[in-house]
Amino acid sequence: MVEPPRDAGQLKRDTLARLDHDIDVWVASAGQQGDPYLVPLAFVWNGATVTLATPESSPTGRNLWASGRVRLGFGPTRDVVLMDGTVQTFSRETVPAEVGDAFAAKNWDARVENTRYAFFLVTPTRIQAWREENELVGRDLMRDGRWLV
Amino acid sequence: MVEPPRDAGQLKRDTLARLDHDIDVWVASAGQQGDPYLVPLAFVWNGATVTLATPESSPTGRNLWASGRVRLGFGPTRDVVLMDGTVQTFSRETVPAEVGDAFAAKNWDARVENTRYAFFLVTPTRIQAWREENELVGRDLMRDGRWLV
Repeated sequence: MVEPPRDAGQLKRDTLARLDHDIDVWVASAGQQGDPYLVPLAFVWNGATVTLATPESSPTGRNLWASGRVRLGFGPTRDVVLMDGTVQTFSRETVPAEVGDAFAAKNWDARVENTRYAFFLVTPTRIQAWREENELVGRDLMRDGRWLV
Repeated sequence: MVEPPRDAGQLKRDTLARLDHDIDVWVASAGQQGDPYLVPLAFVWNGATVTLATPESSPTGRNLWASGRVRLGFGPTRDVVLMDGTVQTFSRETVPAEVGDAFAAKNWDARVENTRYAFFLVTPTRIQAWREENELVGRDLMRDGRWLV
């Protein structure tokens, strides 16, 4: 059954709740040859930025480091939050303590893995959310880094 | 609770069942400037290829048409099937009848939308599947277009 469309305030509340509570996110990146990459990763949201951690030598790690751009897909395919963002990259030596600690508190401490993990701070530039086609109008919650709601 | 790892045969059976029955898939593509894109779309699997349909003028439509490359993520983030593929693009005039008919039978007839839809036939080159970390070894089911299982 298709639910009635949510108003903008409800869309934003549902979006922030998902960012606070979800464990994993679909992370889309692109290589320098234009090859798309996609993998689910654990994340943590601090109210303004998303932190991801993945091995430095993985495709996602290399793509985010080189391009500084990411698109994230949260939620199931019929209740999505989509976020475009710019990426700031840290090694495990340069990651600010509060960033590494926040990731460790929600997920695990990726700073002490045998494999070298990098940390990626994603600052959202655009956020969209929708469940079904009836919400595709008015789905933009953030544009150019500013909440519209 | 983490389930025990599945053997390769079970992984393949579960993968084929997901391709047969799931409705939507996460579609990752890349623009010519190296910008990643990601959106959930309806699909149909015929046992060898995935068919997608999306407006010709959408970011995914333009990216797939220009690059001929895609990476697809099926399932929830803790029970994934990941597929790299090459893409053959058709307009609604050039799409083979059996391709348009199969998409319409499972989803809806995108050939008669007011917006011009394009059809994308994805031939998999690599398929991976896993639930949790304990399945990350042995997750490759297809490489270079050949099933390993």
